[in-house]
Amino acid sequence: METEISQLGEFGLIDRLTENMPLFNASTLTAVGDDAAVMDYGADKEVLVSTDMLLEGVHFDLTYMPLKHLGYKSAIVNFSDIYAMNGTPRQLVVGLGISKRFTVEHMEALYAGLRTACEAYGVDLVGGDTTASRAGLVIAATVIGDAPKDTVVRRSGAKPTDLICVSGDLGAAYMGLQVLEREKVASANDREFTPDFAGKEYLIERQLKPEARRDIVMELAEAGILPTSMIDVSDGLSSELIHLCKASKTGCRVYEDRIPIDYQTAVMAEELNMNLVTAAMNGGEDYELLFTVPLTAHEAVSKLKGVRVIGHMSPEEQGCAMIGRNGEEIELRAQGFQHM
Amino acid sequence: METEISQLGEFGLIDRLTENMPLFNASTLTAVGDDAAVMDYGADKEVLVSTDMLLEGVHFDLTYMPLKHLGYKSAIVNFSDIYAMNGTPRQLVVGLGISKRFTVEHMEALYAGLRTACEAYGVDLVGGDTTASRAGLVIAATVIGDAPKDTVVRRSGAKPTDLICVSGDLGAAYMGLQVLEREKVASANDREFTPDFAGKEYLIERQLKPEARRDIVMELAEAGILPTSMIDVSDGLSSELIHLCKASKTGCRVYEDRIPIDYQTAVMAEELNMNLVTAAMNGGEDYELLFTVPLTAHEAVSKLKGVRVIGHMSPEEQGCAMIGRNGEEIELRAQGFQHM
Repeated sequence: METEISQLGEFGLIDRLTENMPLFNASTLTAVGDDAAVMDYGADKEVLVSTDMLLEGVHFDLTYMPLKHLGYKSAIVNFSDIYAMNGTPRQLVVGLGISKRFTVEHMEALYAGLRTACEAYGVDLVGGDTTASRAGLVIAATVIGDAPKDTVVRRSGAKPTDLICVSGDLGAAYMGLQVLEREKVASANDREFTPDFAGKEYLIERQLKPEARRDIVMELAEAGILPTSMIDVSDGLSSELIHLCKASKTGCRVYEDRIPIDYQTAVMAEELNMNLVTAAMNGGEDYELLFTVPLTAHEAVSKLKGVRVIGHMSPEEQGCAMIGRNGEEIELRAQGFQHM
Repeated sequence: METEISQLGEFGLIDRLTENMPLFNASTLTAVGDDAAVMDYGADKEVLVSTDMLLEGVHFDLTYMPLKHLGYKSAIVNFSDIYAMNGTPRQLVVGLGISKRFTVEHMEALYAGLRTACEAYGVDLVGGDTTASRAGLVIAATVIGDAPKDTVVRRSGAKPTDLICVSGDLGAAYMGLQVLEREKVASANDREFTPDFAGKEYLIERQLKPEARRDIVMELAEAGILPTSMIDVSDGLSSELIHLCKASKTGCRVYEDRIPIDYQTAVMAEELNMNLVTAAMNGGEDYELLFTVPLTAHEAVSKLKGVRVIGHMSPEEQGCAMIGRNGEEIELRAQGFQHM
């Protein structure tokens, strides 16, 4: 039993979607149901805001992306931006463009994912905009966060001698996408088709249910390490390294044999006959944290769980390069969206 | 000479668009160029945030909407939400989904409009997200604003005896849309066609270059009037009255002969054989302020320029109605998006 959105109307739909929305933060004074959300921030805080847009056919394919996962991911990619500033996400507003083929239940599934993410990370969904779309599903989320004064970590603070660190492993979400795309093609001509994801569970999870690295931000704080610069890995490590270097006016050297890669990623690259390092450097959607610390923090940062030192900053004129296994220098290139 | 976006790439495009972006507020610590915008709010402030999405083919038609105007309007509709809380818009983040047919120059025109609006209203454009779209232009803007503590005006504060006031006039933007649609149809079969907007300039301007009513918010403050509830008129007066009544748990009575309507709107309704009051009550996109004040503020509010008392709140069980010219009660109906 699916309900047509027309049965509820716009406001009925919003009421339905935002019913019993839990609130976690004392700073949230007014959430959904007014022209704007109201927040109360103490004078000892800095307020952070970031926005991300996800478009059907560009960022997601509903053939294999369940709507609940999509909602979850839409929130996570925004939270990740706040953690990348060394902040804490507090509020989320979500704009939705909905085309005619979606039902109330579809939107409830999407919101269930948004709620799950908000609950997991202690964020309040405080508002949004819901509108008709002629062209599939559009999700535009904006997150507001905060950080104690003078603890925000920007892209621009790295020094030429700083160590470069990255959390987790890279390239798995990209490989997950390749698996899903392959199974989609295989299933297109076979109604009895059952996808086989055995041995690829991690890749699928990284693509369909990414997490933001709050744990790393907390670990850093507990260890008393304040990174000199930080960014989240959404477009791929190469791209993000270039962003840090550009903002910090440095160059960098990262080492191919230090790039963290999960074995499932490696196996899949082999299977698809793809270059593993290219996937790890340029795949994107990892939502890991890339950051720099002073040389003096080397010992402290080495003790952190799930963080690896992959290289060091260098003087700006040296440019950005990866040092290959045979000592060769490979210039890094920025990615970003490719379709144009 | 148009430049393909592919020539610049995503980051090049962003650099181009955000070059020399002026900043107006001391509270803006970091604007574009990082994962999140950083703002510093004093403890005596409340922070406001609101988001609006505009989709090509749903909210705008580029046949007659110049991109610069579209950028301007995208900002204005967001600012209007902050004024509707009795706040001041401070920062704006803009997410853009761009399909292949758009060039750098197109996006520059859009940004020129955003900048013009930001300059006119003293707002800082502090970030955004730019991405590919398969389906026309998508604009998702989120505004952050503030208000001194305890001066935020919500939808929920009206009492059953309060007076209902509205700024400016209603229905003109809707009539402007009708004019533009008519000229579009007329021009479709005639390459030599020159649209004739004589006598309809005000209608066109209300549709293509709306303003947010900062002046009314300032007038209210100067007159020492704190509205008990407030909302901006984006979906039409009927709809917004119902929102105020629902949130405040009241009913309302507004008087047909008090609804402010410009003479160009009236002439155009006559020309198109449309019901004038329906257009004024349900047309939408007026971006006027609808608010309530206590009965005791009657004299003070009557002195305000560009504000008219159109009725009064009433006990909830009386429902929401308009009183027609012959004394008949006409129940108000909510609008919202219609296509579903």
